Amino acid sequence: MQNIKIIVEYDGKDFNGWQKQPNKLNIQGEIERAIEEVTKEKVNLEASGRTDAGVHSLGQTANFKLKKYFPVEKIPVALNSQLKKSIRVKDATIVEEDFHSRYHCKEKTYQYIINNSKEGSAIYRNLQYHYPLLLNEKKMDEAIKYFIGEHDFAGFKSSGTSSKSSVRKILEANVIRQGDIITITLTGNGFLYNMVRIIAGTLLEVGEGKIDPKEIEKIMESKDRTRAGRTLPPQGLYLVNVKY
Amino acid sequence: MQNIKIIVEYDGKDFNGWQKQPNKLNIQGEIERAIEEVTKEKVNLEASGRTDAGVHSLGQTANFKLKKYFPVEKIPVALNSQLKKSIRVKDATIVEEDFHSRYHCKEKTYQYIINNSKEGSAIYRNLQYHYPLLLNEKKMDEAIKYFIGEHDFAGFKSSGTSSKSSVRKILEANVIRQGDIITITLTGNGFLYNMVRIIAGTLLEVGEGKIDPKEIEKIMESKDRTRAGRTLPPQGLYLVNVKY
Repeated sequence: MQNIKIIVEYDGKDFNGWQKQPNKLNIQGEIERAIEEVTKEKVNLEASGRTDAGVHSLGQTANFKLKKYFPVEKIPVALNSQLKKSIRVKDATIVEEDFHSRYHCKEKTYQYIINNSKEGSAIYRNLQYHYPLLLNEKKMDEAIKYFIGEHDFAGFKSSGTSSKSSVRKILEANVIRQGDIITITLTGNGFLYNMVRIIAGTLLEVGEGKIDPKEIEKIMESKDRTRAGRTLPPQGLYLVNVKY
Repeated sequence: MQNIKIIVEYDGKDFNGWQKQPNKLNIQGEIERAIEEVTKEKVNLEASGRTDAGVHSLGQTANFKLKKYFPVEKIPVALNSQLKKSIRVKDATIVEEDFHSRYHCKEKTYQYIINNSKEGSAIYRNLQYHYPLLLNEKKMDEAIKYFIGEHDFAGFKSSGTSSKSSVRKILEANVIRQGDIITITLTGNGFLYNMVRIIAGTLLEVGEGKIDPKEIEKIMESKDRTRAGRTLPPQGLYLVNVKY
């Protein structure tokens, strides 16, 4: 038995999210189909977590188990030959038999990209969120620091998740501007449903001057979803990296 | 009468090139339609030059003449509200009555982007050309320097153009690598049909080791299209900037 971990890049625009579901194009189903084509084995592909429709990945991690031997170094090329170009398997390695992409995940890094130019970008329109009014990225960076550490993020999740606890630990967080592009980066031990997109929406209100950076603590303590900002759209969100 | 110069970004993938043609989606036609919606005037939009189907622009320049007054500072927002998101008017200014985007163009800068990773990119697949075998960008940069100066580029054009002379002057040229991304940049007083894509194809053969950088001079002197490399596909090509 071989337990194989793959790293996958995908363009979220083309799919109804990671999770397998009937009659809707999804990334898990596409990769499972490619694995079956290549290895003649039906597998269950476990990801580090689902990503929603429209969310991009630069470094999603997933694993699957093969009964028969297949040379692991040939897996990226073999799977890519069977996959749409909007999914690319970047790497494949053999991992221990009990390795599980979701249970054993220690850290994830997400980025949210805002195009803060007046007119937006024609070329990158599906790869960033366009916000035309000038944002103060220094205040946004000041605000994001309040998320660092262990907190109850009950006010920063959408309903529809079954996680027992809404306590998560943020390890690193920053907001930087390069020209018109504002990049929000968050590394944590886990994220609740829509948590990054709600944090990004809250930071947007900080950048506009509607929320003072110091208020973030109180908004977190309130555990009240209505006090945080809106959920920003998926095309700005990237799962960048997963650590074990 | 107002002569108005606009700067336009577009995603080439969505169009059959710049030039107006019946029953095919094109950038010139889309912008002329938007101008008519906004100003109620039918205009002829003159670009600095055509771009082919699939070629992107970050800084195409075009101009049009209005009989009635329209506040120039409102033109980008007004046109963008009528345009698809794959075309963005970035700027509009009033220019002298005799200004002509094509005749008065002094310099153009093009870039050609190669993704030189083994697997390519899912996210940027329509915004770069994927070439999986390792290229030597130092040799490519050595080779591109031979194009600098005034030369007859007869061997570096596709047929189907009516330009009288095939002599053009290249002012700046370089090849740089950042990780897996190789960027070819060329600034010149003008470019022949497919010239950048043929130069990029020739540099690819230099990067592979099939052509020695020193051979570029002889290939130019031969004026023989068959001695240069192939025409690389349009999705890697960007019109970056036009100077007057």
